Amino acid sequence: MPLCDLEQSAGGKSIRNYSVESVFPGGSSIMKKQYVSDLHQRLDVDQNVVLYGWVKARRIHGRIVFIDVVDSTGTIQAVFEKGQCPDVVFVMAKGLTLESSVKVQGQLRARGIQREIVACCLDVISQASIAVDPHVRDPIDIFDPAIQEQLLGHRHFYLRNEKVMAILKFRHLLMGLVHQWFRSQGYTEITAPVLTAVPLYDDRSAIGLTVDNQSIFLTQCVGFYLEWAVHAFEKVYNIGPSFRGEESRSKRHLMEYWHIKAEMAFADLEDVIATVESLISFVSVACHEQGGDLAKTLGRSICRDGVSTPYPRITYAEAVESLKRDGVDFQFGKSLGSDEEELLSRQFKQPFWIVGVPRTIEPFPYVVDPNDPRVTRTADLIATNGYGELLGVAEKIQDLSMLDERLAEKGKLGNPLYEWMRDLRKFGCVPHVGFGLGVERFIRWLIDIPHVRDTIPFPRTFRRKIFP
Amino acid sequence: MPLCDLEQSAGGKSIRNYSVESVFPGGSSIMKKQYVSDLHQRLDVDQNVVLYGWVKARRIHGRIVFIDVVDSTGTIQAVFEKGQCPDVVFVMAKGLTLESSVKVQGQLRARGIQREIVACCLDVISQASIAVDPHVRDPIDIFDPAIQEQLLGHRHFYLRNEKVMAILKFRHLLMGLVHQWFRSQGYTEITAPVLTAVPLYDDRSAIGLTVDNQSIFLTQCVGFYLEWAVHAFEKVYNIGPSFRGEESRSKRHLMEYWHIKAEMAFADLEDVIATVESLISFVSVACHEQGGDLAKTLGRSICRDGVSTPYPRITYAEAVESLKRDGVDFQFGKSLGSDEEELLSRQFKQPFWIVGVPRTIEPFPYVVDPNDPRVTRTADLIATNGYGELLGVAEKIQDLSMLDERLAEKGKLGNPLYEWMRDLRKFGCVPHVGFGLGVERFIRWLIDIPHVRDTIPFPRTFRRKIFP
Repeated sequence: MPLCDLEQSAGGKSIRNYSVESVFPGGSSIMKKQYVSDLHQRLDVDQNVVLYGWVKARRIHGRIVFIDVVDSTGTIQAVFEKGQCPDVVFVMAKGLTLESSVKVQGQLRARGIQREIVACCLDVISQASIAVDPHVRDPIDIFDPAIQEQLLGHRHFYLRNEKVMAILKFRHLLMGLVHQWFRSQGYTEITAPVLTAVPLYDDRSAIGLTVDNQSIFLTQCVGFYLEWAVHAFEKVYNIGPSFRGEESRSKRHLMEYWHIKAEMAFADLEDVIATVESLISFVSVACHEQGGDLAKTLGRSICRDGVSTPYPRITYAEAVESLKRDGVDFQFGKSLGSDEEELLSRQFKQPFWIVGVPRTIEPFPYVVDPNDPRVTRTADLIATNGYGELLGVAEKIQDLSMLDERLAEKGKLGNPLYEWMRDLRKFGCVPHVGFGLGVERFIRWLIDIPHVRDTIPFPRTFRRKIFP
Repeated sequence: MPLCDLEQSAGGKSIRNYSVESVFPGGSSIMKKQYVSDLHQRLDVDQNVVLYGWVKARRIHGRIVFIDVVDSTGTIQAVFEKGQCPDVVFVMAKGLTLESSVKVQGQLRARGIQREIVACCLDVISQASIAVDPHVRDPIDIFDPAIQEQLLGHRHFYLRNEKVMAILKFRHLLMGLVHQWFRSQGYTEITAPVLTAVPLYDDRSAIGLTVDNQSIFLTQCVGFYLEWAVHAFEKVYNIGPSFRGEESRSKRHLMEYWHIKAEMAFADLEDVIATVESLISFVSVACHEQGGDLAKTLGRSICRDGVSTPYPRITYAEAVESLKRDGVDFQFGKSLGSDEEELLSRQFKQPFWIVGVPRTIEPFPYVVDPNDPRVTRTADLIATNGYGELLGVAEKIQDLSMLDERLAEKGKLGNPLYEWMRDLRKFGCVPHVGFGLGVERFIRWLIDIPHVRDTIPFPRTFRRKIFP
C-alpha cells in the first residue's frame, strides 16, 4: 500500500486547509499538475500520482469502490480497496456523491491500453449536495427533445456534459481558425460597437434601449462600420455579438449570436464569393484534421461538403423556376424559407450560391444589378444536408444616387441618422463588398447539430426567458 | 511616354465601367493587385504599375502635378507632367480633390530609397465632394484637446488618419497576441452572453433594457459564466464587450469596452498573479518586436515596464499608510482614485500589485481573507507612468456559507436571480480564480495614449451622444 498521510484524508475539509502556500517570488503554485489525458499516456506505471477532478460515477462492489474521476481532458478510474487503503479513505470513497470535487492520490496501473489509479488517499474538496437528473456527466442524448427543457433550464450545470463540452471545444477550435485565416490574409480586426444610433438593416427586429435619455439599439450587423473602415484599412473583419429581437421558432436563429463579418475594398461579387469559398474550405479542412475526436464524442463526423471549391450557383430567378417546377407556389421577390432552401439543396452535393437576391428583401446599402434591377448584386450560400442559409455576400453601393434611391425605397431618405452613410459616398468611395456568417450556423452545419442554441455556451432565444 | 488607353482615362466614370468581369470559375478578380508598401520595395524600376488608392495631397508646380496616393500600407508620389501624359489626364490630375479615390497607371521610378510613379493614366473612381477640416490624412496631432470635438464627432472620417490607423493596427496586433497566449496555455475560449438576467457586480452602473417584457441587463463582467465554465473546462477565457453605464470624466472609462477575462480552476491568488504577469510580459515583448513601426508613427515607443517579472507588491493597508505619510487624507476601506494610484506608482519602475482590496468595495463572489477579514484575497495591478489601475485578480468563493455571508452583505441574499451562483457552491465547487483586463487600458498604457477612447474604433462614452 503506498504511503498516505491519514491526517490529510480525514474528511471533507476545505482544500484551503492543505493547499501549498506559495512564497513570493516563487512562480506558479497551481495545485493541479496532472491531467487525465496525460495519465492515460504514461508508460511509467507504478508511479505515485495526484489528480484533482470530479466524481463522474461511483460503483460499489463489496470490498471495492470504483470512482470515475473526470477532468477537462477525460475520465480515469480510481480503485479503493478495503484493506489496501486506510479504512477512513474507503468509507469516504463509498460516501462520495456524484460531481463532488476530489483530490485522489495513488499508484498508476495499466488497465488494457488505459490507466487506472490504485488509490491510497482521498481528499474531498467539496461534497456535492445537490443532484441533477439526468446526471450531467452521463452519456445522455443531449439532442433528445424530451429533455430539452431540463437541459436549457440548467445550462450552467450541463456545461459539464462531455457532448456539450465537445461542441464548445469545437467552437473554440473554429473561432481560432477563423481568426487565423483572416489574419493570414491581411485583414485587420476592427471591433465595431454593440451600441448603435440606428437600427441596422431590419428595423422591426432591432432591440432598442435607452441610455442617458438617448434611444439607441443593439447592433444587428456591423456592416456600416466596416464599410467606413475599409476606406482606411481596405480589408477588415470583426467577430462579435449581433442581436435580433424577432420571434422565431426556427432552429437557426438566436437573439444573440456571434457574427463573423468581413469587408473588402476594391473588390466585387466574384471576389467576395471566392473569399468566402476559400475561408469555408480552409476551416472545413482544418476542422477535419484537428476536430475529429470532438466530432467522434458526438457520434458525428466533420462535414466536408465545403472542402472542394468553387461551389455551384443558380440565380434567384432559376431557383424560383425550379421551385415552381416542383409544384411550390412561390412568388418572385419573396424570401426563400427553410423548406424551399432544403428542396433546392437536393440538387447539390456542395453548398451552393443563390445569386441575385431581390431588392425588395435586401438592405438598402446593397448594389442593384444594372442588368436586372429587380435583384441585387448579392448571393446567399445555402448549406448541404438541409441546413439552409449559411451566409450572404453583397456588393455595397458606391454611388450616392443609387444609395439615395435605395434609402427612399426603404423609407429612410432624409433621416439624419443615415446621413453618415451618405457622407461615405461623397468622400472617395470605392467598390467594396462584404459578407456575414453566423458562428453558430457554421458550427451547426460542420458537426451536424439540430439547433444553433447548442453551439453557444449560454444561448439566448427570443422565446425563452433569459436566465442565467 | 508609356502607353495609355485614352478612352479609359476620359473622366470621372464609375469604376464599374472598366472593372474586369471575371468569369466563373475563375478565382479571384480583386482589382487591386499592388500595394504602396510593395512598390517602395521593388527593385525593377521602369516597370508599369497600376495602383488603386486615395488622394492624400496634391501639389501643382506649373507643368507638373504631384499627387500623393495613399492606401492602407503607405503613401507614394505620382507625377503628372504636361506633355508627358495626355492633356486630359493632366487636367484631371489638376482637378483632383483630396480623398478622391483613383486608379493611377504609370512607370515606377526610383526617388532616393523610395519610389514614385511617373503617371500616364488616371481614372477617378469617385471624386470627393466634401472636405473635412483638418484633412483626415494630414499629420495632425490627434491628441490635441483643441480638435477633440471635431475628431470624435467625425470619427468615421478620421479612421483614415495614419495615427488613428496605427493605434487600431496596434489593437489588432495586441488582440491577436492575447488570443495566441491563452490558446498556447491551454485555455478554452468561452463566449459568454451580453444579455444577462442580473446586473453583475455593480447594480448602479448596469445598463438595463426590456426584451419581450423581461427586464434584463447588458453584461458588466462575464465572471459568473466563466466561474461555471471552469468547473467543466478548468481554464477558460473570453474577449468580448462589457458595458458600464456610469457617468465618468476619467480617461480610462468607456461605456462599452472590450474585456479580456479569464478564470482557472484549482488555483489561488499566487497562481493568478503569476498568470497575469506572464501574459503581460509576453504581450509587452511581442508588441515591442512587432509593433515598433506603429508606435513610431505615433511618435511613441512601446512601454517595456511590464517585461520583467515578478512585479512588486504592497498590501492595501501599506498603500493607505504610504498615502497618509504623503499627507493624503485617505480612509481604509475606500477605493483608490487615479490621484492616489499615481502617487503610489512613483515608488515603482514596474507595474505593481496592491494586494488585499477591502471587502466593502469588492463584489460578493470574492474570497474574504481569513487572516484579515477586512480585506479580500484579491490584488489590483497598477500601471507605470500614472496610467492607474490596469486590472484586478481575485480568488472566488468556494464555500456556500462564505458566499451567503457576502450576498447578505451586498443585500442580494434571497434574490432568486442569484440562486444559480449558490448552486455552484453545492455542486462540487473547487478553488478558482479569475482576472479581467480592459483591452483599451492595456493599449493605452503600452503605447502611451491619453484617453482610452482613442484605442477603440468607435468609442462610446457615457457623456457623448452615441453616433454614428
